[in-house]
Formats: sequence, structure tokens, C-alpha cells
Amino acid sequence: CPDGRQSPAAAALQRGVCRTLRTLGHSVITELTLAGGRRADVVGLSPSGDIWIVEIKSCLADFQADAKWADYYDHCDRLYFAVAPDFPHEVIPEETGLILADRFGAEVMREPDEFRLTAARRKAMTLCFARTAALRLQRALDPFCGE
Amino acid sequence: CPDGRQSPAAAALQRGVCRTLRTLGHSVITELTLAGGRRADVVGLSPSGDIWIVEIKSCLADFQADAKWADYYDHCDRLYFAVAPDFPHEVIPEETGLILADRFGAEVMREPDEFRLTAARRKAMTLCFARTAALRLQRALDPFCGE
Repeated sequence: CPDGRQSPAAAALQRGVCRTLRTLGHSVITELTLAGGRRADVVGLSPSGDIWIVEIKSCLADFQADAKWADYYDHCDRLYFAVAPDFPHEVIPEETGLILADRFGAEVMREPDEFRLTAARRKAMTLCFARTAALRLQRALDPFCGE
Repeated sequence: CPDGRQSPAAAALQRGVCRTLRTLGHSVITELTLAGGRRADVVGLSPSGDIWIVEIKSCLADFQADAKWADYYDHCDRLYFAVAPDFPHEVIPEETGLILADRFGAEVMREPDEFRLTAARRKAMTLCFARTAALRLQRALDPFCGE
């Protein structure tokens, strides 16, 4: 598991998480670069504007290598970790949410504590999410639309 | 020109407008259904969160059939009409912006008056833009992700 984010295992979990967030009413985007430079694996935006971040951990080493996960609290109302069913999930911090996932879907096993974003941070995150999604969509629809 | 929105001519103008808005730094989405049910042809979201609506008019009849274009002011800071170079553009209302477009790009010929959205309306529009873009992007990447 040298690079959890890019591995096929991580991609499969990410897909399942995205599908399940959609059924929960969230719109989602993957690999969103946040203010400060960190990248969130999955960001969900609810109909009312709540923002969830889901970090995918495809193996224990991947989780242990992430010493700065608490930084995500600057960018979301709720923070979840998503892991495969055979992941030793007792290591996942109790205040965060726990999602078990596979390629086809996911299940929220534990809801996290909620730390509401300030209005200014919510506005910035929503704008970042909106612009990134639209720029990627335009690129998908019109590959020669420019940088 | 029985249905300007769906015609190849309108689609060509729309593509050119989207490309040019992108070069101006806007992220864009097409055919965005607004609160109230109207649909905007092109919506641009600037890096600072300004919202522009561009209505595509592929022929004079298409423009004349739209008696309620002023409703768009409820949803944007700036309203433009985009037309082909041979459109009789003197009919376009002076307070709106004028864009000449073709399939490959567009040029802003006249900037419109600006009517700034309230904070609540801007928040609602940004959220609508963000969710629609992300839902469409997910559908493009994972066609079986569900409704």
C-alpha cells in the first residue's frame, strides 16, 4: 500500500462512498484541493449546504501515515473515514465518522461529532467545490475548452 | 428557429460562450434550472463568487419569444445576451450585456449594468450551481451511480 490514494483498492472504496453519498442526497466531488494545499478524497455537499469530508484509507499503513487528518476540520462540518470491511477499524478516532465501503456502495457505521463551519469558511468551501466541479465537467464535455 | 435552446445553432453559440467565460476565469454550467423553474442557458461563477447569466439567442424570433428575461436578475449579478454576429443586436436591451459568439469563442461587446445579488440569493445560487455541476460530473464519471 505505498500510495493509498492512487491504488485500485482506494479507487474502489471511493466509488462506493460516492454512490452512497449520492443516495443520501449529497452531491460529491473527489480529490478536491483545499485552501492550504491538502487534498480531500471525497467531499459531499448536502441540499442545505452542509459539507462532509470522507477520507479513504485502503490499509492501516495508509491511515498511520496521515498525521494531520485533524486539519480537515477547517473545511467540513463532519469528517468520516471510509475503510474496507476487513480494516482494523478500532484505530479510527472515535470523534470521526466511520464508513465501511466496497466498490459498489458503503454504509455509515458511526456518525461523527459535528463541528459547524463558520459562514466565511462555508462560503469559501462551497465556492471551491462549485468551481472545481464545473471546470471538470466542462473539460469532460468539451476537451478542448482550454486550461 | 422553432426551439432556439435545442438547435444546433444555439448549441454552437453556447459552446463558444462557455469557452470564452472559461478564459475569463469563470467556471460555467449550462442549462441550470433556477429556483422558480426557469432555466438559464449559461451560468458563470467567478473566482470571487460573482454570478453571470448568459442567455443564448440564436435568432430574432427566439429573443422576441422571451418576454420574461428580466426574471434572470433574481439570480445573477450580471445578465448578458449572446448572439451570432449577424443577429440584429440593436434589439438587445441596453442595460444587458452583449456577447457575439460562434462555435469557437465569443467576445464581450458591451458590459451590462450590475445588480448585485443579496447574500441569501448568492448563497442559494452558488449551492444550486455546485450541486448541479457535481451531480452531472459524477454521472459522467460513473454512469450507474443512480439518480
